[in-house]
Amino acid sequence: MIIYGDGRSGNCYKLQLLCALLGLDYQWRAVDIMAGETRTESFLKLNPNGKVPTLILDDGRTLAESNAILLYLGEGSALVPDDAYLRARMLQWLFFEQYSHEPYIAVARFIKLYQGMPEARKAEYETRLPGGYRALTVMEQQLAESDFLVSDQLTLADIALYAYTHVAHEGGFSLEAYSAIRRWLQRVESIPSYRPMDN
Amino acid sequence: MIIYGDGRSGNCYKLQLLCALLGLDYQWRAVDIMAGETRTESFLKLNPNGKVPTLILDDGRTLAESNAILLYLGEGSALVPDDAYLRARMLQWLFFEQYSHEPYIAVARFIKLYQGMPEARKAEYETRLPGGYRALTVMEQQLAESDFLVSDQLTLADIALYAYTHVAHEGGFSLEAYSAIRRWLQRVESIPSYRPMDN
Repeated sequence: MIIYGDGRSGNCYKLQLLCALLGLDYQWRAVDIMAGETRTESFLKLNPNGKVPTLILDDGRTLAESNAILLYLGEGSALVPDDAYLRARMLQWLFFEQYSHEPYIAVARFIKLYQGMPEARKAEYETRLPGGYRALTVMEQQLAESDFLVSDQLTLADIALYAYTHVAHEGGFSLEAYSAIRRWLQRVESIPSYRPMDN
Repeated sequence: MIIYGDGRSGNCYKLQLLCALLGLDYQWRAVDIMAGETRTESFLKLNPNGKVPTLILDDGRTLAESNAILLYLGEGSALVPDDAYLRARMLQWLFFEQYSHEPYIAVARFIKLYQGMPEARKAEYETRLPGGYRALTVMEQQLAESDFLVSDQLTLADIALYAYTHVAHEGGFSLEAYSAIRRWLQRVESIPSYRPMDN
């Protein structure tokens, strides 16, 4: 399989981390978001929504949306609970990540780190901070009760939320007040097959 | 089971529509988003992220995130494909809905319909329109090729995306140029157990 991705993107890193944990082989095709490479005619044929990561299966079929790809590749592994309710809680966190976490923490990081905080986006940057802290508070509450987000076992929910949380400081977020999150980050990083983010 | 929801919210309507299609019984507890009822101390105990819909199972366990609830309730029904790839494509659309569709189409509708387009949010409203049309264009492209979003069979992806697409005009979007979407809306509405949105 082929993964089109940008190594600085947490959404793409999720897949690199999952593949490391599961020992899955893939070809990596670097796509530069900042250079507009997700908006070219040829890339839009692979993913009409113009986003990375995009997965190409060996038979040529395509799959988009980082968390859908995590679920496709992770199905049947120990990272997906068998129990129907725990599975649903994992899905709850995956949707939480895309709706209540990524648009704040990843977008703030994008404006600060990728774009170098241009004057024109500074006000928008500021509006992202409260939502990011709200998301961290919801995570902190859960992680004070269980070692990982769904239970005491690592699941795809941890991979998805680790991706941008561990670089939240690059978006200007402080994890000082979030001790359960900080312990959880270390827990993920101490897994033997852990792989750090590029850059 | 109990569903806490606001009948004007497409995210809540998804569950009402799914339950109608599958013949599932539930108790409905009306929660008024505009009156701040998702932010009360007692509601935050049910869902620390302060959002509806929130599902309460008969044993008291809770589940949040509309699309995670759709997957939990729909699992094992004809609305979830058996094939691993088609299932993944369904998930792709569910994440697309929450990241690339809802934040534009539902938020524009919220500002226009719920809030009555206050002057202070008019500029923000305008910024939501291009993203909404981009999402509709991605859907139109797929629906020109297949009767439903994943294949020629109805899946949870259609339920999730129908919810806010069929009321997109309430957010100021015109579906005039989207004939495949308009035919798809009629296709969903012609299902015998179809249930319209409240209000």
